[in-house]
Amino acid sequence: MNTRHIEYRPGVLRLLDQTQLPLAEVFVELQSWQQVADAIATLRVRGAPAIGIVAAYAIALEAHQLSGKSMSDVQFASALGDAASGLVASRPTAVNLTWAVQRMLSHARSQLDAKVSRAQIAASLDTLARVVHDEDITACRSIGRYGATLFNQRTSVLTHCNTGDLATGGYGTALGIVRSLWSSGMLERVYVDETRPVLQGARLTTWELQRDGIPYTLIADGMAAYFMQRKDVQAVVVGADRIARNGDTANKIGTYGLAVLARAHDIPFIVAAPRSTFDTMMADGSKIIIEQRRPEEITAFAGARSAPRDATVANPAFDVTPAALITSIVTEEGVLSPPFEESIAKLPSTLAAQVAR
Amino acid sequence: MNTRHIEYRPGVLRLLDQTQLPLAEVFVELQSWQQVADAIATLRVRGAPAIGIVAAYAIALEAHQLSGKSMSDVQFASALGDAASGLVASRPTAVNLTWAVQRMLSHARSQLDAKVSRAQIAASLDTLARVVHDEDITACRSIGRYGATLFNQRTSVLTHCNTGDLATGGYGTALGIVRSLWSSGMLERVYVDETRPVLQGARLTTWELQRDGIPYTLIADGMAAYFMQRKDVQAVVVGADRIARNGDTANKIGTYGLAVLARAHDIPFIVAAPRSTFDTMMADGSKIIIEQRRPEEITAFAGARSAPRDATVANPAFDVTPAALITSIVTEEGVLSPPFEESIAKLPSTLAAQVAR
Repeated sequence: MNTRHIEYRPGVLRLLDQTQLPLAEVFVELQSWQQVADAIATLRVRGAPAIGIVAAYAIALEAHQLSGKSMSDVQFASALGDAASGLVASRPTAVNLTWAVQRMLSHARSQLDAKVSRAQIAASLDTLARVVHDEDITACRSIGRYGATLFNQRTSVLTHCNTGDLATGGYGTALGIVRSLWSSGMLERVYVDETRPVLQGARLTTWELQRDGIPYTLIADGMAAYFMQRKDVQAVVVGADRIARNGDTANKIGTYGLAVLARAHDIPFIVAAPRSTFDTMMADGSKIIIEQRRPEEITAFAGARSAPRDATVANPAFDVTPAALITSIVTEEGVLSPPFEESIAKLPSTLAAQVAR
Repeated sequence: MNTRHIEYRPGVLRLLDQTQLPLAEVFVELQSWQQVADAIATLRVRGAPAIGIVAAYAIALEAHQLSGKSMSDVQFASALGDAASGLVASRPTAVNLTWAVQRMLSHARSQLDAKVSRAQIAASLDTLARVVHDEDITACRSIGRYGATLFNQRTSVLTHCNTGDLATGGYGTALGIVRSLWSSGMLERVYVDETRPVLQGARLTTWELQRDGIPYTLIADGMAAYFMQRKDVQAVVVGADRIARNGDTANKIGTYGLAVLARAHDIPFIVAAPRSTFDTMMADGSKIIIEQRRPEEITAFAGARSAPRDATVANPAFDVTPAALITSIVTEEGVLSPPFEESIAKLPSTLAAQVAR
């Protein structure tokens, strides 16, 4: 893909507004962490790795805003901490957001301890945010390569939501595996769940696949079982927003149902995620906070009302798939197999864990 | 519900246009079978029993149109036969349509054999169509009563698509069970799948439940598994478009996936349908024709585009749930239990079978 959907220059973060895709390619320029938090909350940027990256840039933006102001080190650290809390609160489920801002904060604090100037701290936060961004692209390419090793024949896969360029620094997690399969001639077709209510599959995944010339078929979410029953789909690949120590995986609402269906049809259910998605503080999925979003996402469809105005609605944005339903978890370090409690424990310790120590 | 969504007076069929709900209550008046076939194909009226009823009225409309014309009995019978074929072709999956027009044709032919006048034939077709309509309402109330006997405690159920007043002559099949449970104080809440792509759940089922004051929660289709996992849903009740002799059931796309999920969560999966939905000519579900509808139902809603214009789309309107996943089939004759091959064979012979003999 050629559109650079996340671009940064010191003090300015430029984002492709994902709420306007596929109808228009509109960019927004943000200069404060509050603007970034708002862009995350309103889904102008979404996808667990991508919101981690923009949150890292948001901390750098705040350092630039603060660097000209007169304040003590304590006040400076405290203001960065407030920005971090505000960013983390913008969406509760994806852990990458917490991971990224903790990493930025930790770096800022050590720089403060080392008596580095505010301007230099801001500059080094710029650099670290770019590292977070670049590392994610590298991780995605690695996930793509490792994921492709799980397939030994030409395959049609089903995917949910958007886990591509737009959801990451670039290339994608589950869609990284799809891209890697496609470049090695092993991909037959991608079945794309439209992914109600926000339609990330219909709006974003189709847009990416179309630009890359990868054959896909867009379906309504309720059709997945039909295509599994017909054996048109031979594997399910999805991303993740938070993975607990035992492998329980929070991801876009609808994922858990797909995992149950995949098991019933005896097809592999593959989760793709960088190490920044693993929450080593969480023993299992039972404590993962599920974000509840506003009813209008259900009662209207692309701006047109689709239900009575005062309809009673539930709108959980994520669900948790028990580890027992997952065949493989693909990370940039390789493919993890069950029992995930053990394979996750053997992963090189994640930065989230390092930061929390 | 007080809106009479199907009303007939000799020569004129008045329908509530379901494509405009819940935003507007607009009625259309139809005077030819072609207009009725078009209303069926464009979903102004939908629901297996309801399209059977309006197709019966459409044959009566045609008899009125023909009764003033000069033609032989053979030409008259042939013109009615053409109307029947055209109506059946308007939607291929629901068998009630075939059942109803065959019943009307069969009656017209016996009247012709008895040398009854054309005007009298038209009048007696009016009467028979009203019988088809009234029988369906009676059947639905009976389904409701029988269905409620399956529950011995206050229950929250999940339903898919619309199977209520609007989908039938009145009262509903699966929604008839819901209404019956509600009036006996046994219903906690209905979870309503929005039912993409045409959103019959979001647009129609909510509208009916709201008018009746029945507590419901509208959810996106991909959320069903989440609410089963939380044990918020204790049973699934759905309608049917065609039931084969072994119990395999065609119904709105998404139903099969719900049946798999219900089995995985160990909750009953209940199909509700009048005898007119049973296709005694069909041994199992493998030969049921699945209607493929136009891609625009997926790529746009109410004029708002939700996917790239040239997206590749699949849009099967129905799927087939194997009998093995069905706990009970509720008919107006009582509750059928597995093995369905046997319990269906014991049903009082359906009129479809009588007509086909």
